[in-house]
Amino acid sequence: MKTRDRILVASLMLFNEEGETHTTTLDIANELDISPGNLYYHFKGKEQIIHELYHQYELALSGTLTAPIEQPLSTDTGSAEDNWYFLYVVLEEMYQYRFLYLNLSDILQRYPTIQRGFAKLTQLKRAALYAICQTLLSHRLIDAGNQQLLGLVDNMTLSLCFWFNYDQLLNEERPPQVTIHQGVLQLMTMVAPYLGEEQLSFYRDCETIYATMLEQ
Amino acid sequence: MKTRDRILVASLMLFNEEGETHTTTLDIANELDISPGNLYYHFKGKEQIIHELYHQYELALSGTLTAPIEQPLSTDTGSAEDNWYFLYVVLEEMYQYRFLYLNLSDILQRYPTIQRGFAKLTQLKRAALYAICQTLLSHRLIDAGNQQLLGLVDNMTLSLCFWFNYDQLLNEERPPQVTIHQGVLQLMTMVAPYLGEEQLSFYRDCETIYATMLEQ
Repeated sequence: MKTRDRILVASLMLFNEEGETHTTTLDIANELDISPGNLYYHFKGKEQIIHELYHQYELALSGTLTAPIEQPLSTDTGSAEDNWYFLYVVLEEMYQYRFLYLNLSDILQRYPTIQRGFAKLTQLKRAALYAICQTLLSHRLIDAGNQQLLGLVDNMTLSLCFWFNYDQLLNEERPPQVTIHQGVLQLMTMVAPYLGEEQLSFYRDCETIYATMLEQ
Repeated sequence: MKTRDRILVASLMLFNEEGETHTTTLDIANELDISPGNLYYHFKGKEQIIHELYHQYELALSGTLTAPIEQPLSTDTGSAEDNWYFLYVVLEEMYQYRFLYLNLSDILQRYPTIQRGFAKLTQLKRAALYAICQTLLSHRLIDAGNQQLLGLVDNMTLSLCFWFNYDQLLNEERPPQVTIHQGVLQLMTMVAPYLGEEQLSFYRDCETIYATMLEQ
């Protein structure tokens, strides 16, 4: 791996583990056993590293989020399972860059150029969740009413954005897959009450997938 | 007002407005036009100020949150309005100490003694929301099933905790009452789909209260 890429990987790891505020460029150089001058040759400071990481994140996540908007998932059945995998991928990508979410206000305040991109990314999350809800609802022939649907999608977007924060607040550290699958379960079950009579079977499908995933 | 109390009020204001990370004890002394020595006489540093503010916050909010657990609200009708007022008070108290939520991970990492209290307070929020949901559901004679109810309460607790973060992420600055009432609306409408046939009228009640409140 090139030094530049190694710097990015090490920075991401340290930001996620130790917190972005507590990580200096010196920590990053030490972690890689390179001189501060070598690091400086590739990046002029922490800000430039953060911008590069954010750019990577934005590129990866927007690609994922655009999929269900352009091509609705599960065109035949609207099954719980397809949506489950999709949300898992989204949360997994977010988890890889979780330092962004854990001190979001502070980071956006210190790196204002990220702010606009971040707001756009959040709107894209909302659009993807809207597409998912529409597919689920249409296949079960239940209409939630557009205003209710928007409220639901807002709640889901909020839960998606701050799931790791909530998890960190209430739970001891647990394996990432548990946190991520639990987040998917939480999101999926938000749609359930809108599915009318199908509600309970949808719930059970979700619980079954959750149990199966964690056994793997 | 005593100097000690003036220091607490000014600190809270600066933490909320400028962010806790960016506020030094010197900023606080300057804001009050007192010497750093005078401030030091009352508080040995920022950590002590934060502890005192957190203590105030915990005392106020736990008092509020305990009410619907000990004495269920709206014992006769389970009306939307009573619950609205309650949630408004909760969110207003949280808003007064919003700096705690805006960089939660960082604050809990730097002030670990707050961490346990904060987790307990979050559990108390959850218990209060559980009590509210139970009252609402029981008066409309719809049972959501206990597992679904727990999922709903978890989602509501998450939304309550991170509402200001979400609002700050997506919206330009707006008057606090708008943010707070919007948060209450968001929380209330999460219960709606569980109310079966009463769902739409409950929704409309909420929308009406929201509109009336903002006109005041």
